[in-house]
Amino acid sequence: MRMAELSAESGVPVATVKYYLREGLLPPGERTSPNQARYSPAHVQRLRLIKALTDVGGLPLASVGAVLSAIDEDRTPHETMGVVQEELAGEPPRVAEDAAEWASKLLQELARRYGWKWHGAEDRTVANLIAALATAKELGHEKLAERLDEYFELALRVAELDVEVVTGLTSFDKIIEAGLIATVLGDRIFTGLRHLAQEYVSREVLGRAP
Amino acid sequence: MRMAELSAESGVPVATVKYYLREGLLPPGERTSPNQARYSPAHVQRLRLIKALTDVGGLPLASVGAVLSAIDEDRTPHETMGVVQEELAGEPPRVAEDAAEWASKLLQELARRYGWKWHGAEDRTVANLIAALATAKELGHEKLAERLDEYFELALRVAELDVEVVTGLTSFDKIIEAGLIATVLGDRIFTGLRHLAQEYVSREVLGRAP
Repeated sequence: MRMAELSAESGVPVATVKYYLREGLLPPGERTSPNQARYSPAHVQRLRLIKALTDVGGLPLASVGAVLSAIDEDRTPHETMGVVQEELAGEPPRVAEDAAEWASKLLQELARRYGWKWHGAEDRTVANLIAALATAKELGHEKLAERLDEYFELALRVAELDVEVVTGLTSFDKIIEAGLIATVLGDRIFTGLRHLAQEYVSREVLGRAP
Repeated sequence: MRMAELSAESGVPVATVKYYLREGLLPPGERTSPNQARYSPAHVQRLRLIKALTDVGGLPLASVGAVLSAIDEDRTPHETMGVVQEELAGEPPRVAEDAAEWASKLLQELARRYGWKWHGAEDRTVANLIAALATAKELGHEKLAERLDEYFELALRVAELDVEVVTGLTSFDKIIEAGLIATVLGDRIFTGLRHLAQEYVSREVLGRAP
């Protein structure tokens, strides 16, 4: 298909498609003349993926580039997912040292109990978790942390479901893409469901006038 | 305490504290002379809360203002949480109409089955959920949506835990603040735990070379 059709199919404006081509986020089409190229359904899918990562996932373009490079680099799905999670986690905010230490110990204890590898704050997912827990403590709301085990048990159940959904697919390419989608959209979807559920559960409990 | 101490205690720079005062995010201190005011521990807590909402929650200042106004307006905790969720959800991204309709039907069916009130896409949480599900469909990954019931069941369990943590507190003020913290930090914390759990669960399944 031509550029105009590619734009219409993917819902991405022509100027934006050209920008993605220049930035290397979208591989070039097959040249048919000095001024024209032909694009394939794979280009449409890639554009939709970029749109999902930016619009729904809220990722900056630089992170989208890192994620797509990881996909294209033929790493294992597991490694690729690691890159995706790093980019999604973003830069962890600064927190007070003692609160961070307290949070780090909590998580290390959790890691030990479940037997997962402790990456420490080098891992951005861990660093962000530490920051969030430390912030809760600084605000005087450690109660959340006291139930960390129960939250992790539920997170495990969600992750099992995630991996089931993703590995239900056949090819490795599909698995990586599905993993990416499950992570980026899955975070949004689960957070949304949790908010609806909170409303449902709390209506009775918190709905009374103060 | 004086401004300098307020800044040191909360970890927020003096210039930023002054900016929050001007913007009305922080209530004025008790004037002790034309150029000086005295601040209380409540001011420290409010500053920490603003820091948590912006740094960890990633909320823009305008949203922080809306959330704090809702707290100060003496609404019911349930209503206040509604405002918090709206602000956290942000503006939903645009998606194709037919995919949105498909997603909307899925969620309506879920609402009917569980007996929660259907607010439709007027509710930003719902609108964002619709957008995320529709995007998954457009990418050819409806599998996630097929397991929506199971995800919702787990979201319910998480929400029950959330409400338990929050209502374990005594005063209504504390409940609102804890609800706010549970939502903003809780989203981050659960998403982080889910990512760790995904890594743990998928190591065996996806760790092989392609």
